[in-house]
This record gives sequence, structure tokens and C-alpha cells, in this order.
Amino acid sequence: MGHGGGGALSAELVEHLLVPAYGNETLAALGDCAQVTLGGARLAMSTDSYVVRPMFFPGGSIGDLAVNGTVNDLAMSGARAAFLSCALIVEEGTDMTVLRRVAQAIGTAAAAADVAVVTGDTKVVDTGHGDGVYVNTAGIGLVPEGVDIRPQRAAPGDAVIVSGPLGLHGVAVMSVREGLEFGVEICSDTAPLGGLVQAMLAVTPDIHALRDPTRGGLGAVLNEIAAASGTGIVLAERDLPVPEAVANACGFLGLDPLYVANEGLLVAFVPREHADAVLAAMRAHPHGAGATLIGECVADHPGMVVARTGLGGTRVVDLPLGEQLPRIC
Amino acid sequence: MGHGGGGALSAELVEHLLVPAYGNETLAALGDCAQVTLGGARLAMSTDSYVVRPMFFPGGSIGDLAVNGTVNDLAMSGARAAFLSCALIVEEGTDMTVLRRVAQAIGTAAAAADVAVVTGDTKVVDTGHGDGVYVNTAGIGLVPEGVDIRPQRAAPGDAVIVSGPLGLHGVAVMSVREGLEFGVEICSDTAPLGGLVQAMLAVTPDIHALRDPTRGGLGAVLNEIAAASGTGIVLAERDLPVPEAVANACGFLGLDPLYVANEGLLVAFVPREHADAVLAAMRAHPHGAGATLIGECVADHPGMVVARTGLGGTRVVDLPLGEQLPRIC
Repeated sequence: MGHGGGGALSAELVEHLLVPAYGNETLAALGDCAQVTLGGARLAMSTDSYVVRPMFFPGGSIGDLAVNGTVNDLAMSGARAAFLSCALIVEEGTDMTVLRRVAQAIGTAAAAADVAVVTGDTKVVDTGHGDGVYVNTAGIGLVPEGVDIRPQRAAPGDAVIVSGPLGLHGVAVMSVREGLEFGVEICSDTAPLGGLVQAMLAVTPDIHALRDPTRGGLGAVLNEIAAASGTGIVLAERDLPVPEAVANACGFLGLDPLYVANEGLLVAFVPREHADAVLAAMRAHPHGAGATLIGECVADHPGMVVARTGLGGTRVVDLPLGEQLPRIC
Repeated sequence: MGHGGGGALSAELVEHLLVPAYGNETLAALGDCAQVTLGGARLAMSTDSYVVRPMFFPGGSIGDLAVNGTVNDLAMSGARAAFLSCALIVEEGTDMTVLRRVAQAIGTAAAAADVAVVTGDTKVVDTGHGDGVYVNTAGIGLVPEGVDIRPQRAAPGDAVIVSGPLGLHGVAVMSVREGLEFGVEICSDTAPLGGLVQAMLAVTPDIHALRDPTRGGLGAVLNEIAAASGTGIVLAERDLPVPEAVANACGFLGLDPLYVANEGLLVAFVPREHADAVLAAMRAHPHGAGATLIGECVADHPGMVVARTGLGGTRVVDLPLGEQLPRIC
């Protein structure tokens, strides 16, 4: 299971087995999406399969994730998602009402994200070789002129900003999966981030890097960006926006909120001179109301992420080995 | 299982549940791929998931199907595939050498089809909720200027041409699955058809309709084209290129070659005046060496497909209810 978790085992699988097998430079860039040129148009393209269990959870469903996840991967290049494909793998015997609910969630989420599902496929597998419905989406969108957002562009001096609270999705799914209650219902943060990114780009096209910290959480993507760019990253631990309910649930479950999956969150690397204006634009957007400056890029310790603790010390934030929570998306 | 078989049950699922849920006109056109415009570029986009069992069979593997299938869906709009996404759902405990073989088959097939796998995803599901490796690909390609290939454009007077022999893929997979031998080894016809389509378009851009008859076989796609265009289709049964080994195997298995899946075959609807030249161009191409005129479109019996039998009678070629062979692609 660890190889699918978005951590070090996933990275090893991708870098040592898949990239050499498929072998091309676009793939080797390993952002959230590929950037390609076709017919003179500069396009972003991305795909994800969704196997989350349960399929319906507080705040969303596999259908929401399938749309928002791919829309968000495209948004991390600055692209606004235009068209999605949607392929279902349905286990024989799945209740038709479940399939209908999933399809309707996909349609509703696509309308909310202003993206069209233009092509699809459905396969049925025998009982015991699936699990209800698995969803794959792939998407394409146009990258705006003058925008060049890539993990490699993060650089010392960049402000590190997250768009909202950490850990909601992972804890929401985990709590319903385990039948746990934490006093307040914790809802997944799943949301389409294309509009938020456009609002940020309206402030400056010179945003360096964007990622949505899903599997592996913020800790994993910060490590990937540090490795890709060679910059060091310093977080202020006490500035991390961890809701009290998430902190409590993580304490109970033995999880670190830094490594818990999010589905409607982005982390942005913004040149220092634009940071205040970008932060203000994010806070003015419904999906960025909780935007927070959490750290900065530094020339020290290249490729390494550290957190300054409340006590004035520092600790290394490692790439997690696997995912703490299997089948979270 | 029938809902995934490419026949009437599949059509019902797509038309009554999925299209209304996702709801837009591009999707409702229901070709092998969507045709969209983005950034001024006229694009084709398609997706398929692959769940074929066994994953390796005479003539190919799930990796070949995953690349060629999506390349071919794009080719059916006249587009040459440019970029693919590739997403894997891996069952926990799958041997790493199997995963490596699948990835290498994908890479080799992509190189042969001259298409780049530019983005991907890997999910791992627990044992008993998958079956080795499932592969999804989505692809985009550019539709050439002046080309307008759609099921709706088939019209009375069109010649109906297939690019090669029928039934090889389905019989190849079925024979290894059931441990059957038919004297000669029957190999899947899986192949990328983009080059063949370009050779046909070099004769005339005015090809009306193209389909690759995979699930549900030639019988299903002829019915879909007849329904979409409102034309009648008449086949000459004795001209159908059914290899003797396929005929024998189908006899033994109780299958009709008209409904057996193909993976490297296309059926073309070509205005009569271009039919000879297109046929000649197809026969000059490695993937069209066995191209054959099998029938024509007629104004009689709109929307219906009939076959003239060797005895001078006619029989109706219906849309199959489900797929004769589950998990064939």
C-alpha cells in the first residue's frame, strides 16, 4: 500500500520504474500536471484515479474528488481546467443507485468548477476485483500567457503561503471510516481551486510554484518542491493553520497534520515583494479565506525542509515513507 | 457485467444515467472521442480504462491495449495522438515484475505509436479490491484542417470498408483464458491506427465516419453509426474477412465473429467516388493490408443494419445486448 501513498515509496516507484519505462522529458518534470504545446496552444494535462473509501464522506464524495482533484492539478500550472474525461471501473453487483449518486456528484462538481466532462468510458469487473466504483479523470486546460509555474522555480526569498486549514480531508474520511466522533463534525475541504489561482495571477503572473498537498500532505509536497528547486524551506510551526478539531483527531489517531491529505488546499511560492498582495487576494476569495503565510525559502540547507518549533528550536520535516491513511483519495 | 460490454446495456447506462448526469452537448455526441476547441486548437480527447484478463496474451498485453486503444479512439476523428496520460490502479501484493512488464509494454507501445506519455498517477488498492493492474489512458491530438469525421456523417452511397480480418483479438484472449488451442496460434490484432488514418486522409479529407470496433465488435459499431446517422447499412456477408481459425474458434465457442472484439481494426464510411482510392491506400499500409469492402449505406431501412447472406436472403444485424466476452479490453 505504501507505494500508492504519495511518499518516498511512491517517488521510488515513479522515478525508478515508470518514468524510465515511459521515458520523455515532459513526464520527467513531475509536476502535478504536464505542460505541452499542441496546435499552437499551451496546454496543461493531468490525470488521477480515485479509489477513496468510503465513497461518500462528510463534505464530499469520490465524484467531488475526481473532478476537483484534476481541476486542481491543472490549476497548479496556472491553467483553468476546460475539459475532463471521466472513466469508471464498476464492480459487478454495485447498486445502480450508488452509481447514479457518483455520476450526479461528478456532474454537480463539474458544473461548480466550470469544466465540461466531454468523453468517458465504463468498464465492469467481476465481484471481488473492484470495490464499488473507481473513477479516473483526465483534464486539459490552457496555461495563460506569461505564466510559468513549476516546482523548479521556487527560490530563496519566496514566501510560502497555504490557502487554508490543514488536514480536514484526511481526518474527515478517517473519522467516518473508523466510526470515530470528535465532538464536531469535520468536513472534507474538497473544492475546485481554479478560480482562486486566477485571482492570485491577477495580482502577479510571477508566482513561482503551486502544489495541492493531497496524498502525503503538506510535508510531502514541500519536500518535493525543495528537492526539485534545490531551495531550503523554513516553516514557522506555530503559524501552521491546524484547526483544533484536526489537532485533537490527529492526536487521538497518532497522525501528524503535516502529512494528512487535503483536497481543497494549495501551497504557493510567491516572490517576497508580491506576498502581501497575493495573500490579500487569496483571503478575498471564498476558497482562500483562511490563507496564511507559513514560512519562507532560504539559501541554507538546500533541498531540505525544516520547521521552527514554538520553543525556538528546529526540526527536520522529512518526506514521509508512505501514506498514513490508505485510499484517502 | 453486461453493462460494461459495449452493447445495448452499455448504451442504456451511458444514455440514461451518465450523459444526463454530466450533461453537455460534446459528450452527448458520443463518438469514440470528443472534439473540442482550446486556445484556437481543434483537439480530439478520449479516455479508456483497461481491465483485460489475462494481462498478457498472444500478440499483446494490457499495456499495448492501453496505448493503442486511446490512440485509435483519437484516430477515429482523424486526429493523430500527441500526448497521453496513464493512470494505474495496482492491487496490493502484485509482483513488481508484473508492474514493470506492464509499464515497459506501455512505453514500447507509446514509442511505436509516436505518442508521449506526459503525465500519470498510481493508486494501490488492497488485495481483493483489484486484479493485478488496471490501466487508464486519456489522450489528446490535433484534428487536421478540413477534416470532419463523425458517426452522424455516414450517408447513403457510402462504401463500408474494414481495414483487416475480424475477431482476432477476442479469440486470442479467449483462447488463452480458457486454455483452448485451435491448431494455429491466434494473435491479437492490437495496433496503433493513426498512421493508417493519415494515409487514408491523404487520399481525401472527406471521409465521413470511422470507428474501431472493440467491445461489441463490428456488429455493435455498425448499429451505433446507423442509429447516429439514420442511414441504413447493408453488408455482404460472404465478403466479411473472417479468418478460418477465427471462424472455427467462434464455432467452437458459440460466438458470432461480428460481435467479437478487435483492437487494431477500423471500419470506414467513405463516399463511393473515393472508395477505390482509399481502399488502395489502406492496402499499401502495414496496418491495412487486409482492407476489404464489406458493404454500403442505403436509404432503405434507416438506422438498421442488415447482412445479405450467401443464399441471397437478408438477416438483421442487431445491437448485441452485452459483450459475449467479459473483460476483453
